[in-house]
Amino acid sequence: MSFQNPVFIPGPTNIPERLRKACDMPTIDHRSPLFGQILHPAREGVRRVFKSESAEVFIFPSTGTGGWETALTNTLSPGDRVLAARNGMFSHRWIDMCQRHGLDVTVVDTPWGHGIPAERYEEILTADSAHEIKAVLATHNETATGVTSDIAAIRRALDAAAHPAMLFVDGVSSIGSMDFRFDAWGVDVAVTGSQKGFMLPAGLAIVGFSDTAMQATKTATLPRTFFDVHDMAAGYANSAYPYTPAVGLMNGLNDACGMLLSEGLDAVFARHHRIAEGVRAAVGAWGLELCAATPAVYSDTVSAIRTPEGFDATRIVTHAADTYGVAFGVGLGDVAGKVFRIGHLGSLTDVMTLSGLATAEMCMADLGLDIRLGSGVAAAQDYYRAHPALARKDAA
Amino acid sequence: MSFQNPVFIPGPTNIPERLRKACDMPTIDHRSPLFGQILHPAREGVRRVFKSESAEVFIFPSTGTGGWETALTNTLSPGDRVLAARNGMFSHRWIDMCQRHGLDVTVVDTPWGHGIPAERYEEILTADSAHEIKAVLATHNETATGVTSDIAAIRRALDAAAHPAMLFVDGVSSIGSMDFRFDAWGVDVAVTGSQKGFMLPAGLAIVGFSDTAMQATKTATLPRTFFDVHDMAAGYANSAYPYTPAVGLMNGLNDACGMLLSEGLDAVFARHHRIAEGVRAAVGAWGLELCAATPAVYSDTVSAIRTPEGFDATRIVTHAADTYGVAFGVGLGDVAGKVFRIGHLGSLTDVMTLSGLATAEMCMADLGLDIRLGSGVAAAQDYYRAHPALARKDAA
Amino acid sequence: MSFQNPVFIPGPTNIPERLRKACDMPTIDHRSPLFGQILHPAREGVRRVFKSESAEVFIFPSTGTGGWETALTNTLSPGDRVLAARNGMFSHRWIDMCQRHGLDVTVVDTPWGHGIPAERYEEILTADSAHEIKAVLATHNETATGVTSDIAAIRRALDAAAHPAMLFVDGVSSIGSMDFRFDAWGVDVAVTGSQKGFMLPAGLAIVGFSDTAMQATKTATLPRTFFDVHDMAAGYANSAYPYTPAVGLMNGLNDACGMLLSEGLDAVFARHHRIAEGVRAAVGAWGLELCAATPAVYSDTVSAIRTPEGFDATRIVTHAADTYGVAFGVGLGDVAGKVFRIGHLGSLTDVMTLSGLATAEMCMADLGLDIRLGSGVAAAQDYYRAHPALARKDAA
Amino acid sequence: MSFQNPVFIPGPTNIPERLRKACDMPTIDHRSPLFGQILHPAREGVRRVFKSESAEVFIFPSTGTGGWETALTNTLSPGDRVLAARNGMFSHRWIDMCQRHGLDVTVVDTPWGHGIPAERYEEILTADSAHEIKAVLATHNETATGVTSDIAAIRRALDAAAHPAMLFVDGVSSIGSMDFRFDAWGVDVAVTGSQKGFMLPAGLAIVGFSDTAMQATKTATLPRTFFDVHDMAAGYANSAYPYTPAVGLMNGLNDACGMLLSEGLDAVFARHHRIAEGVRAAVGAWGLELCAATPAVYSDTVSAIRTPEGFDATRIVTHAADTYGVAFGVGLGDVAGKVFRIGHLGSLTDVMTLSGLATAEMCMADLGLDIRLGSGVAAAQDYYRAHPALARKDAA
Repeated sequence: MSFQNPVFIPGPTNIPERLRKACDMPTIDHRSPLFGQILHPAREGVRRVFKSESAEVFIFPSTGTGGWETALTNTLSPGDRVLAARNGMFSHRWIDMCQRHGLDVTVVDTPWGHGIPAERYEEILTADSAHEIKAVLATHNETATGVTSDIAAIRRALDAAAHPAMLFVDGVSSIGSMDFRFDAWGVDVAVTGSQKGFMLPAGLAIVGFSDTAMQATKTATLPRTFFDVHDMAAGYANSAYPYTPAVGLMNGLNDACGMLLSEGLDAVFARHHRIAEGVRAAVGAWGLELCAATPAVYSDTVSAIRTPEGFDATRIVTHAADTYGVAFGVGLGDVAGKVFRIGHLGSLTDVMTLSGLATAEMCMADLGLDIRLGSGVAAAQDYYRAHPALARKDAA
Repeated sequence: MSFQNPVFIPGPTNIPERLRKACDMPTIDHRSPLFGQILHPAREGVRRVFKSESAEVFIFPSTGTGGWETALTNTLSPGDRVLAARNGMFSHRWIDMCQRHGLDVTVVDTPWGHGIPAERYEEILTADSAHEIKAVLATHNETATGVTSDIAAIRRALDAAAHPAMLFVDGVSSIGSMDFRFDAWGVDVAVTGSQKGFMLPAGLAIVGFSDTAMQATKTATLPRTFFDVHDMAAGYANSAYPYTPAVGLMNGLNDACGMLLSEGLDAVFARHHRIAEGVRAAVGAWGLELCAATPAVYSDTVSAIRTPEGFDATRIVTHAADTYGVAFGVGLGDVAGKVFRIGHLGSLTDVMTLSGLATAEMCMADLGLDIRLGSGVAAAQDYYRAHPALARKDAA
Repeated sequence: MSFQNPVFIPGPTNIPERLRKACDMPTIDHRSPLFGQILHPAREGVRRVFKSESAEVFIFPSTGTGGWETALTNTLSPGDRVLAARNGMFSHRWIDMCQRHGLDVTVVDTPWGHGIPAERYEEILTADSAHEIKAVLATHNETATGVTSDIAAIRRALDAAAHPAMLFVDGVSSIGSMDFRFDAWGVDVAVTGSQKGFMLPAGLAIVGFSDTAMQATKTATLPRTFFDVHDMAAGYANSAYPYTPAVGLMNGLNDACGMLLSEGLDAVFARHHRIAEGVRAAVGAWGLELCAATPAVYSDTVSAIRTPEGFDATRIVTHAADTYGVAFGVGLGDVAGKVFRIGHLGSLTDVMTLSGLATAEMCMADLGLDIRLGSGVAAAQDYYRAHPALARKDAA
Repeated sequence: MSFQNPVFIPGPTNIPERLRKACDMPTIDHRSPLFGQILHPAREGVRRVFKSESAEVFIFPSTGTGGWETALTNTLSPGDRVLAARNGMFSHRWIDMCQRHGLDVTVVDTPWGHGIPAERYEEILTADSAHEIKAVLATHNETATGVTSDIAAIRRALDAAAHPAMLFVDGVSSIGSMDFRFDAWGVDVAVTGSQKGFMLPAGLAIVGFSDTAMQATKTATLPRTFFDVHDMAAGYANSAYPYTPAVGLMNGLNDACGMLLSEGLDAVFARHHRIAEGVRAAVGAWGLELCAATPAVYSDTVSAIRTPEGFDATRIVTHAADTYGVAFGVGLGDVAGKVFRIGHLGSLTDVMTLSGLATAEMCMADLGLDIRLGSGVAAAQDYYRAHPALARKDAA
């Protein structure tokens, strides 16, 4: 493994030099005013990345999984009913968490590779005339399958059913990399982490709560302390935390928001789309298919690539690490051994991406797959040359 | 505020250069074998710092507070009875967490400045012939008051009462800085964080579970997912995590254990005692008193110093930050405004300590207290000169 | 030796966190436009720190000694006569360099501890009616003795003698820390390095040439290539170097100039004077004397402190390093063993300075000198309290 | 320009993470014993990389150009005759330096793209029966043309002529990357810098002197101070420098030697050869030719690639920087506009190399050259797959 090669896992992403330096901070007193100068703009920056005017942003020293737990325990009570689709490993895990916390989950099982069926959500919500369903869960981007679901459609399903349930969105591998609209989509709780679109090391759970979700915290009885948003809000009011914050990571988060907002969110999303299209062009040139069933659900942050029947896709990942010092993602759960994944989120250049494609080609050829060397690289080169990148500032 | 001055808060501590570099790590694939080469020795190193042969060590991307929640939710069920003393802000908060999680807490209120009354624990445990008490909580070092309690005495109380309750110890501001004996004291769950004795940034909850505690996890019904030790253990068996680990901090933890163990734990503890004695000599020279009631409970990691009646001790902390760019700790809870705190844990030299004492003197003089400049510094200089430091390796 | 203690050598100085990060730069192409974005503002920043409107600034990957060689070899020819005073080790070395390069040096021997005798320069220059003297050398701040000479007075001597000789000033330990006026004093070549007032690691020779000096380069016949300013100027015109530049250090230099200029040069000088006065107050409290003969020549960047007759002052420096992990400067040349030196230039806080004074006290007491512990610290505390520091921005 | 893309200039090279950290060092006292712990092993490490038992190694805060000046000024006197071939920009510059220092250079003009004609050297040396020639200069690897000359053959030429002239070798872009044998080849002065095979930032001139060269220093009369090896040797004897050393870079150099020697020099050379062969395979697949005239002189550290007649090769370099954020080298001197250069020395992986080749392809296609996308990448992939890399340790 070489620290000089990029990683192509779907998070943690490659960390820009500037953000590594922002995180590598000497000890400061987290109860001094200096900390407030990091905390408040970081929260404000996240809110803007969420495309929200009013979300309450909370940042925990934790991970996206902790963010999920924050969403559930602050807004729900034991026995509460929630609706969730299972179309990949991460939605699966979120459902499991609900069940462990004593929630009654209505699971919509969906083929892996497909998006959340908004129409099925609408049927169930419409049928729930008693409004027992308190929350609707949606994984915006299934990192396991490279499938992006249509959150606006889920909001429309809720509205069509005139259902008051809250909408919780797992945006771990979407926020900061693809379009996410907290306000416009009527999201009540959004969850992400530091190590994806924000291009930082893992270690922060980042969540946004709507007014509705904040109201729900008043009656929710699931036990919580570490992830309690009231304690956190009380701390913030005092420019502080209820416990010791991860100051360096917060400083990095503040700077990461600055980078994203300075580039412009739409430019950031276009950049991810462009890089992803090049990867997909390569996959096509290799004669392979994505796990994602249709172009409508292709993810701009990660591609899960199906390998031929009878071939163990995990061998590609192991071989890439052992032989070329490059990290790809294995298939998880139902698609274990059937796909390998190329993460293409965060701060990536054409040049870095091409190196990942070239490596994947060598690995597939080494392992006996019928791949023409250079073919995927050429397809991506074609795409990138034909679709010039926007000039970026602040890319260091 | 200057990044060039040391901090004198009781954590996060000053980070040695070497550990800053260990934490500042490029992205690696946390599912690759490389991660196992960090994870396993880090856990083993922590176990040795705990002075345990067999504790199961779990490391969460969280803080000490998350460690407390790990201890409770993995071993207890709603309604379970626990015994705890309240003699400072941190024991207070732990009790509060128990109550929020639906536990029945028998609180032994103890004057702030005093240690946990082991004899009172023994009475209560003896009286609990039905063995309703499932866990006994003890804060080894009350960071708010600078008071160290005698954990061995609490073990003796449990034994004298022949009581099977588990012993949970908050070692957040003691472990890695003062003597802690997981095995010898029969500790069942020990909790600490990365930002104290381990000299790292905040961001890791570090816990150890005894066999007894591991057994208790099988029947405990408090809901938990993020802090579930079974999920974590299953991950570890695969050299992985159930979610994304904080790899850089783990790398730092591994290196921090290496530093502590290479110096020798007893040498580390002696070093902390020596530095603390110099601070206490200065306090005496100033004509002030510690919050800690008797020398037997003086803490070697933090001194809470009482200021004269009618003087708001918090002003010293604010003034030190504003005027001299130095961070001390304010008084918390019952002793807010009555004490200020000098943290003296982690990697500190005589020279750094003297600079903190000199600063405290200037602040007190600036604010009108009757302090002779140089008096505390001279007392500490005397102590340090008369008690030479052991040679340290690996101190960079 | 601990990396956590400040150093008190008269350079290299303590490096602010921000400058360490500016220097720690990934490889860039030094022939790309990116390099010009570092080079040009760095040269412009240096020019402003020199208080010059028009000096040609050259930056070599070298040290102050290389800067001296640049001054001589670009402007003089073998056999040329120069005038120089010898009042310390650094002026001695410069004279030695002149002689090795075949120059004819008229040496004005001056007691160490005294400043350059401008009146003697005037006599010699006046006597040189043939204008054989081509250059007058002046060490602005003798780092070996802690003596600052009056460069304006030397300019007046030249003017009084109506002598056309060039004025070369060694500003290694003055520029960026004490008032230096390239234009107002009619300096022709000024020399410094990166590791003093610029607070960077060693590795850059920084020189400024006046129009007169640039004219002299056309006829100077001393051989030169690496230090040739014409090659360098030709490179600069192309945003490049005649060889590979030290890009990270240049980036740090650019940022250092930004810090100094943002603080304001006069504020920087006042800050150095204030810190130095505190050190001198401590020396007085110890009952010791400076090597510098009169207050008029006291240096604001380094104090050379005489120890009692019969005591080997070098022992203090050795003992401080061995026992307390603190670096002071030894005496050099004529004052070896007679003085030890406390460097107080660059980015120093009151708190850091007091730690150095406290250490010096311990060392002197350890070695049997009759020093009252805390006495120097108290004197400095008094001074610092009575003379509050200006607020600094950008001090990280 | 992105700091995340590798650079493909022939130095400075990409800096391994570990070496960046080694260089980024807090200030230490360069007169303390700590410095000796860096200096001595660094010199010893360099000696071993030179494959010498007895070379005196000197390390200056300078660059390779300063190293050349060190070689000349310490061993020669004005008017001394030297023999040198001019077959590229760097040999040209060295000859220019000789002339500026008053040496009498017998120049063997050699077509750019060809190696040094050892047979011509032999003729000239044989004809010089008076032994007027004091030194024979040889550029081991012409960075401008990607041509490696046969130094052993030059030694044989000297021996065949029974000529006592010293042999000076510019190993700037060879040492640490391709086989270099100070002792076996009878080299008298070898010169390199920190920013090539040692994988560090620029800022150090590294030279080795044989006993013969050291003898010559006693009579050499070219003026020198900064580059005087006697001053340097006197400093080293005291674990110090005659001026302020670049401590962080020295620390990095020590660590770099550790990396190279731990990998094994022959493995390092094999690694460079393998990477270079892949690049050359790509060049062939593109239908282009190297500037290097024959395989015997192909350089394993840099390839200068001829572009078709009438095409300005410099446009590739500009376009790569502007459009793809990647740095290649332009043609210099006689081959300006006729070649572009791909540096492939230092710490490079297959993956990094392929990204450079993919970028070059895009640039050439963008600018209208008849290049099939992916063709060079495929050729290099083929080569790398067929020639597996040795496992490397210490590659971080």
